[in-house]
Amino acid sequence: MIDRIAIFGMGLLGTSTGLALRAAGFKGSIVGWNRSSVGAQTALEAGAIDSIASDGLQAAIDAQVIVLATPVFSILDWMEKLATVLGPEHLVTDVGSTKGQITEAANRLFNRPDRAGFLPGHPMAGKERGGAALGDANLYRDAVWLFTDVPTWERSADSAQLVTDWREWVAAMGSRTLDINPARHDEMVAWVSHLPQFVATALSALLETEIGAAPELKDVGGRGLREMTRLGASPYSMWRDIAYTNTEAIQRSLAALEQRIAHLRENLRTPELRDEFEIANRFRRE
Amino acid sequence: MIDRIAIFGMGLLGTSTGLALRAAGFKGSIVGWNRSSVGAQTALEAGAIDSIASDGLQAAIDAQVIVLATPVFSILDWMEKLATVLGPEHLVTDVGSTKGQITEAANRLFNRPDRAGFLPGHPMAGKERGGAALGDANLYRDAVWLFTDVPTWERSADSAQLVTDWREWVAAMGSRTLDINPARHDEMVAWVSHLPQFVATALSALLETEIGAAPELKDVGGRGLREMTRLGASPYSMWRDIAYTNTEAIQRSLAALEQRIAHLRENLRTPELRDEFEIANRFRRE
Repeated sequence: MIDRIAIFGMGLLGTSTGLALRAAGFKGSIVGWNRSSVGAQTALEAGAIDSIASDGLQAAIDAQVIVLATPVFSILDWMEKLATVLGPEHLVTDVGSTKGQITEAANRLFNRPDRAGFLPGHPMAGKERGGAALGDANLYRDAVWLFTDVPTWERSADSAQLVTDWREWVAAMGSRTLDINPARHDEMVAWVSHLPQFVATALSALLETEIGAAPELKDVGGRGLREMTRLGASPYSMWRDIAYTNTEAIQRSLAALEQRIAHLRENLRTPELRDEFEIANRFRRE
Repeated sequence: MIDRIAIFGMGLLGTSTGLALRAAGFKGSIVGWNRSSVGAQTALEAGAIDSIASDGLQAAIDAQVIVLATPVFSILDWMEKLATVLGPEHLVTDVGSTKGQITEAANRLFNRPDRAGFLPGHPMAGKERGGAALGDANLYRDAVWLFTDVPTWERSADSAQLVTDWREWVAAMGSRTLDINPARHDEMVAWVSHLPQFVATALSALLETEIGAAPELKDVGGRGLREMTRLGASPYSMWRDIAYTNTEAIQRSLAALEQRIAHLRENLRTPELRDEFEIANRFRRE
């Protein structure tokens, strides 16, 4: 039974996790650690956490489950620090967007009978803007929460039990859980998440360069333009770590899209255009 | 005072025009012509039109205002046919997505004191799927309805009056009107409408090729993926004519985007990535 949770990182995901746990009926304590006190205070006032940790390591030691909800490099840093102070009575989990390096670190630093357990996780949910103020108890409703757990890890009985319990809380927050190999995870999210993001960033940056001085044209574009550029508002601070920890898969997907766009460009007046529209139509067919 | 309107093309825009006119209080007659009787019947049953024209030319002759709401090439065909049978008591207008060739044809075939008037129009509204069944009385609400009218055209007094009246009906349907030079129109819509469409088509086609056999991955992508590929459902039948009548501007915008994506791809681990995100963020800033 989990009754003491520490959340590291009071951004959109960390704050939403606290709010969603409360909405799902979690009655235990939730302590929050955040790099800046402003975000922590916002999360506290929203009811996502019931206290602010001044000492992250001590807050982790006092908790049973530690949820790392910072950008990926900061998750990797915390994993190094926490591995030396936590024990088999703890479970650490995360919500980081890439899973290769995190799962590798989990294998190296955690998940032995005499150490804390680590469950690498990734809820496929978010907004184009971050921050505690956007925290949302329903963020994980109807989302897919991926885990890149490794079947051969030998966890302590306590941390194995905490894994089971945490998975139940994820389901209680409204998400469907799905287990996947970490390399496959990173390749897959390159297609369905990172590629759409970087395309939206490139499209938004191009349009800012071309028509940024004529804001009335944004209205002319309507819903299609708004949707295709919404992710253009996403913060560099989060995507830098994703770009750095999934570089090759993202490069492959971007190069493939460049070719596909060039193919359309060269076939605007040939029957190939029909084929491309028909393939695209199939992707959107129910 | 307009009291007899003929709409050619009972697709999404034509049907929505009839419904929006009725919702705005138009009490006159609306006759509809459609290539297939099924779409015409659907529009009739929805109340978008009150009769179906069996003879398009006769329906045009009997009307005061003829709204061409077919794909662009069909609009150009109808312009040729109508110019020979209509007179200075008529106004033809259209809702086609490109305006260069249509405005040129309007200049050649209409808009002299002894001929019918032609007002080239383009409401910036639509859905990713077409057809009379999706007709929507609110489609034009809060949209921008562009006109590429030419100040030097010398229209008959009757057709000049019908231009004024039609612009008032457009406003009554909830759209803001905006006049723009036809070449500038086609360049502008290449950026804000055609580029987003072709990118969505290329992205959807690529994802269909890469992950089409694993439909569960579409759910994983969530809202961002859904939005970035929604326009992938758009029909070739409409976009073929747009690609053909605005080829160069679309090619320029696609080539520019290919370069911008390549720039991101080459800079996933350099500070250039920050610059691109910041430029993209500016486009989305209110």
